[in-house]
Amino acid sequence: MTEATQTTWTRKDLVGIEDLSRKEIELVLDTAPQFVAVSARDSGIKKVPLLQGRLVVTWFYEPSTRTRTSFELAAKRLSADTLSIAASTSSLVKGETLHDTLANIEAMHSDVVIIRHAYAGAAHILARRHGSHIINAGDGCHAHPTQALLDALTVRDHIRSVRHDPDAGLDGVRVAIIGDIRHSRVARSNVWCLTKLGAQVVLCGPRTLMPPKIEQMGATVTTELREALEGADVVYALRIQLERQQACLFPSIREYIRRFRIDKDSISAAPEHALIKHPGPINRDIELSAELADGPRSVILEQVTNGVAVRMAILHLLVNSDAGA
Amino acid sequence: MTEATQTTWTRKDLVGIEDLSRKEIELVLDTAPQFVAVSARDSGIKKVPLLQGRLVVTWFYEPSTRTRTSFELAAKRLSADTLSIAASTSSLVKGETLHDTLANIEAMHSDVVIIRHAYAGAAHILARRHGSHIINAGDGCHAHPTQALLDALTVRDHIRSVRHDPDAGLDGVRVAIIGDIRHSRVARSNVWCLTKLGAQVVLCGPRTLMPPKIEQMGATVTTELREALEGADVVYALRIQLERQQACLFPSIREYIRRFRIDKDSISAAPEHALIKHPGPINRDIELSAELADGPRSVILEQVTNGVAVRMAILHLLVNSDAGA
Amino acid sequence: MTEATQTTWTRKDLVGIEDLSRKEIELVLDTAPQFVAVSARDSGIKKVPLLQGRLVVTWFYEPSTRTRTSFELAAKRLSADTLSIAASTSSLVKGETLHDTLANIEAMHSDVVIIRHAYAGAAHILARRHGSHIINAGDGCHAHPTQALLDALTVRDHIRSVRHDPDAGLDGVRVAIIGDIRHSRVARSNVWCLTKLGAQVVLCGPRTLMPPKIEQMGATVTTELREALEGADVVYALRIQLERQQACLFPSIREYIRRFRIDKDSISAAPEHALIKHPGPINRDIELSAELADGPRSVILEQVTNGVAVRMAILHLLVNSDAGA
Repeated sequence: MTEATQTTWTRKDLVGIEDLSRKEIELVLDTAPQFVAVSARDSGIKKVPLLQGRLVVTWFYEPSTRTRTSFELAAKRLSADTLSIAASTSSLVKGETLHDTLANIEAMHSDVVIIRHAYAGAAHILARRHGSHIINAGDGCHAHPTQALLDALTVRDHIRSVRHDPDAGLDGVRVAIIGDIRHSRVARSNVWCLTKLGAQVVLCGPRTLMPPKIEQMGATVTTELREALEGADVVYALRIQLERQQACLFPSIREYIRRFRIDKDSISAAPEHALIKHPGPINRDIELSAELADGPRSVILEQVTNGVAVRMAILHLLVNSDAGA
Repeated sequence: MTEATQTTWTRKDLVGIEDLSRKEIELVLDTAPQFVAVSARDSGIKKVPLLQGRLVVTWFYEPSTRTRTSFELAAKRLSADTLSIAASTSSLVKGETLHDTLANIEAMHSDVVIIRHAYAGAAHILARRHGSHIINAGDGCHAHPTQALLDALTVRDHIRSVRHDPDAGLDGVRVAIIGDIRHSRVARSNVWCLTKLGAQVVLCGPRTLMPPKIEQMGATVTTELREALEGADVVYALRIQLERQQACLFPSIREYIRRFRIDKDSISAAPEHALIKHPGPINRDIELSAELADGPRSVILEQVTNGVAVRMAILHLLVNSDAGA
Repeated sequence: MTEATQTTWTRKDLVGIEDLSRKEIELVLDTAPQFVAVSARDSGIKKVPLLQGRLVVTWFYEPSTRTRTSFELAAKRLSADTLSIAASTSSLVKGETLHDTLANIEAMHSDVVIIRHAYAGAAHILARRHGSHIINAGDGCHAHPTQALLDALTVRDHIRSVRHDPDAGLDGVRVAIIGDIRHSRVARSNVWCLTKLGAQVVLCGPRTLMPPKIEQMGATVTTELREALEGADVVYALRIQLERQQACLFPSIREYIRRFRIDKDSISAAPEHALIKHPGPINRDIELSAELADGPRSVILEQVTNGVAVRMAILHLLVNSDAGA
């Protein structure tokens, strides 16, 4: 048992990584592997009754089958009941404030409400005012904390495996994040999470897609891919949102590919052992070559597996630590 | 045990309040509180196995996340399996009559089918011809019986609390319903339900939004808000459908607010103890001021909680009273 | 116990009837009746724990409430958890290949993936490359194997009942399939299934809606309805896709009705005992008269009931025969 597992969870909500201490992050990472094991059970009974009879609500203002599905499955594997509210098409919310809608959900005795909203800060404001456990599943360009936690778990698994050290942490590990940093809540949450765990983060992308003052978060910034990849233990290619092109934030796909694509050529700047990550879905051969995405260094599918487990860990910690308001 | 609980349930369906006797309504209201308690269980296991292995189908021709969600949750808390058929987008119903679609659902051994349809009378016609238990979740401007039942439960709870009498009924209680009575199945079902329970109902709204011959249902009608509110134990503000304006049925939102809004000024005509109700979702500061909606006299969220419990009660009574055709 | 039930299931997937041996088809048909009984249980507990804790994913690129609902219910009645991915609206698949999406689903430890796709062969290609159990729920005009199996079960039930022989098979039974054979995966899968079971199949429809070389599958072809119906034990009317008319493949609805509708007049060419089938949803009075659809010879609703049971049988055989790759 590591030191981290002796920490106890005391938070009502998970709204952002920036609120968490290193020990709290490590508690989540130490809690998740048992749930990886539950999902992989040979017997087929991939469930535990830790949230039996509880109600977990997904409340998404932006469509995201990928994240919503992962949360729903996490809730089901804990034996909770789930309810999905697709806010865009929902009459539940016609003319209603966010607070009114959440108050209505809570009046049905929900236990956990998982929210995705385009407005940065939405989950935070709701968590402060309402008694439910709130999980932020992405708020605008701000944060996506469960993504950062599943990324950290995936990196830690592989560092431990490569170093043959079952207790290795992320201290001194170098992670390069490549792409549209500006619009990426994945990047922002990863910087918070990885730097708290002692890793060094290098951010790389076109200058127009780099947010101002990002260095203040503790990351190094470069516009040169080769510089970012040198010495990187992990190379994290972000998804390019093709629709951003219209906003003239980068010149052309061809130009992006030439300067920033992670492929057989560019990856040669990184060490042999460097892992390839991507949050999915991949634009094959745009931000990441198909060859590398499918190759032995890619941990893209381990991220998906760890995503369910990390979300099970968070649901369990929130509900069963008696940290409700 | 009150007299009402000695009644037994003998109906196959719930299609309208007008069919029910006072004793039947009271049986539902007396059955619901145990389900309020199930949903509020501290242990977290908010379920009972009363419909274990049963199939409850929601079949909605009009979108209504609010009502559908409440029914689905009620079914899940009774341990039923649920299936949701969104008829508007469904190929199930392409070129099919209502009867064919329902026959198909029944061929999969459904136990209860919950239908919302724009055509007044749809649930009634289906219930008469098919063997399933049918629940009407709203048919056109005609009826919304579970809404009326949850409203009656909420009113009764508060009358009992205010009068310190755990057996108090609604005899002599005065309920003012304010707004677009004409298009409101909520209003219609409430008049039937409340008058059967011995309450006096006053309907108030613009003359153009008042259906002809509504007095024949046993309610008093007025176009003067002050007159409606005098002596009211309960003030029920209906949701204004802003899209009705185009039909020239009322002059302007500003005019509506001036004459019919329930707010700090207008409510002064009612007694201090008068409750504030609204079926949701609220147009804040149009039909009801935000201040009153959030104030101590508002029971809007209790209505939501009671909604799940009343629907559990109905599902239980229909399925477990052996009243199938 | 018949000989067939001594066969054991060894396939990882169900992608087409053409792959199956007669004994394998009979194994499915012999496994299904126990699940008909589960769904019809008087006790109300219409479930068995055969897939307890398993994850069954429906992944539909074409909407089909009817088929998806039947599969979901089958999974739930086996106590599996279900996840539904509506691919058309799904961000899961934005810019992703079929293989990437399936790999993502599998990384969440799915047990069975049920796919419907417009591309003939999609299920086959996925099944060959991935480890999950894949069920083809319809691929283009190619195949719809569970439909053929439920049709065969329905026909066998009635032959057994008519002949008072609980072991009767389909040898020598004559089945006429009427309509748009060309675009019908139902027709194609039925021809494979029925001829393997020893039945004679006659295909009938306008020449423009008859695929070339269809006789090579072992069926007889005619454009004369009377000829098709003579001696038919089963008359299977296919659904006319009204939108095909624009492609000039048949002259007019009126002409179709005159020559190919199954109604009181035309059915007189068939024996008294001939069954009426239709895959649903029916265009009443176009391909099939309402009178016959609702009459005593129609087994359209038995098909729906058998559909859930056959899908339960397939899920059970795939998962519990340990035939995974």
